Amino acid sequence: MRIILDGMGGDNAPKEIVEGAAITSKLTPHEICIVGDEEIIKRELSNHEHETKNISIVHASEVITNEDKPVQAIRTKKDSSLVKGLMLVKNGEGDMLLSAGNSGAIMTGSLLLLGRLGPIGRPALGALYPMIGKDSIGLLLDAGANTEYKSRDLLNFAAMGSVYAEKVLGIGSPAVGLVNVGTEPGKGPQAHKEAYQMLEKSKGLGINFIGNIEGRDVPSGIADVVVCDGMTGNVLLKLTEGLGFGILGLMSQYFTSSARAKIGALLLKPQLREMKKVFNYNAYGGAPILGVTHPVIKIHGASTHGAVRSGILKALPFVENDVIAAITEEIQKLSEINAED
Amino acid sequence: MRIILDGMGGDNAPKEIVEGAAITSKLTPHEICIVGDEEIIKRELSNHEHETKNISIVHASEVITNEDKPVQAIRTKKDSSLVKGLMLVKNGEGDMLLSAGNSGAIMTGSLLLLGRLGPIGRPALGALYPMIGKDSIGLLLDAGANTEYKSRDLLNFAAMGSVYAEKVLGIGSPAVGLVNVGTEPGKGPQAHKEAYQMLEKSKGLGINFIGNIEGRDVPSGIADVVVCDGMTGNVLLKLTEGLGFGILGLMSQYFTSSARAKIGALLLKPQLREMKKVFNYNAYGGAPILGVTHPVIKIHGASTHGAVRSGILKALPFVENDVIAAITEEIQKLSEINAED
Repeated sequence: MRIILDGMGGDNAPKEIVEGAAITSKLTPHEICIVGDEEIIKRELSNHEHETKNISIVHASEVITNEDKPVQAIRTKKDSSLVKGLMLVKNGEGDMLLSAGNSGAIMTGSLLLLGRLGPIGRPALGALYPMIGKDSIGLLLDAGANTEYKSRDLLNFAAMGSVYAEKVLGIGSPAVGLVNVGTEPGKGPQAHKEAYQMLEKSKGLGINFIGNIEGRDVPSGIADVVVCDGMTGNVLLKLTEGLGFGILGLMSQYFTSSARAKIGALLLKPQLREMKKVFNYNAYGGAPILGVTHPVIKIHGASTHGAVRSGILKALPFVENDVIAAITEEIQKLSEINAED
Repeated sequence: MRIILDGMGGDNAPKEIVEGAAITSKLTPHEICIVGDEEIIKRELSNHEHETKNISIVHASEVITNEDKPVQAIRTKKDSSLVKGLMLVKNGEGDMLLSAGNSGAIMTGSLLLLGRLGPIGRPALGALYPMIGKDSIGLLLDAGANTEYKSRDLLNFAAMGSVYAEKVLGIGSPAVGLVNVGTEPGKGPQAHKEAYQMLEKSKGLGINFIGNIEGRDVPSGIADVVVCDGMTGNVLLKLTEGLGFGILGLMSQYFTSSARAKIGALLLKPQLREMKKVFNYNAYGGAPILGVTHPVIKIHGASTHGAVRSGILKALPFVENDVIAAITEEIQKLSEINAED
């Protein structure tokens, strides 16, 4: 396998990205091809032990930054690490792309350069989500790529998410829930009502649909695959982050409010450290872009070398288990069923 | 003022509702009129000290339960405590209705029996929200009444929420944020893009619009009035509840994982109790239904007597400051401005 890594994307690029690649090169037999400014990448690499036969570099003279407008950047920065990385994957010179760069540009580039997968109208951004109710990781999609959507898109998100959860996250027969304002079938906007019916009909076809779920059920882990429209998914993810930080902030404020409290907090130090880990998304792996023709993974913009390492390692099954083929097959089955309407 | 209280709605009705009314009767000079089964209400009242001149009872033989379908219940249960309570308000025999009953029925009843306020197409359900970043309470709307919506609805939510936050929550020039997938003006669904433009134009008219806010900003308190479509608002509220419980659950699990941790938790007991209070919505007051012709407050279904008391006391300015008139005036100003388009 040849893994393409955008060496220049992300808040800590290229330093942490290259260090992550170096560490990972000693842990897998796969080739990691870093795309970016060759001179800079080489210099960074020289600072870290690595398995030379597993590392290669492809030069790219430009960088797409977070300030760049996605469509324009993809069209004009042809020699950027992201565009070059995507083209390597498209041309069969790489099996998967990972980038910590501009999310919009990664999504847009995947769409414009790689293209949609079969009949999928709207690719989705998946996001790993901590199911704190049962100490596991689930997949939430769409995490914000599509704020306009139809019932068919929600159905496709369910199918793609289900395949990814099974083949990459290793969850057998993942439970799929549709986020809605109530659990009853007739709830929510028209697109959700229709998607509910389609998902009910598709139950025998590999989607373990458990029905509508409410906001409060998301972190409980009742569903391994949390299906939502892009607005809802984006707000869910960001609120989880905001509340996590907010509550940790409250804790450090309250837990230092008296001498007695400070001693208590000291005794609880290992537990408090464990709790913080729950909200450390980096450790879980990256976020897949699903519904395009090749595997693409967005890793967190603030990724450190550890996050790069787990991003790469946890994404290997995306290629090894040929998730793209499995999604294609699943979507095909679903379109036959729902064409009967 | 004559406050109409649905004595039969809610998980703990009539017991806790009546006890709440009894306590409150000694704290305000206003009349609290409890609607419900007269015999039962009288018996419950006799168990609690109360100011007799401030309490009255209107008999209602039926009850709308949480299992009832809203539209059907409002149409057929004419002698229910909710329908009778709403009719008292409509006919000028009461100034405000509070109920802990079936939310859908309260919303539907307000809409069908009281009617929309002026040009407001879709009334909203407001919800008080704990701004943990700055230890204050804000208003979020719509909390789930409208999953189909237009830009004009979002504008109206902003106007109504702004008036309520100022006149009832006592926040001077409340900051109004529009929940979206990004902070830039061009983000999100079409209705949000348009609403952003309308809100920008309406800045001089009493709405202190601060722009788009993201999910992570909601609990920070950057906006006192959090404007969102019903799906997003509903999910935001319920996720906050779910995560609050989830994190408290994690804490009690981790904090009892060793003898040392247990001692730490014991020392932190007062702080942990304080933290739980942040997520205790009951203490903040009830949720207003905004955009109908009279003041209606939904109090939490699981309300205890304490929640009933604070629900009533905190809602008094809804009537005292004539919020309905202020909303009417604000909406009028806005329609003039936006009719210019």
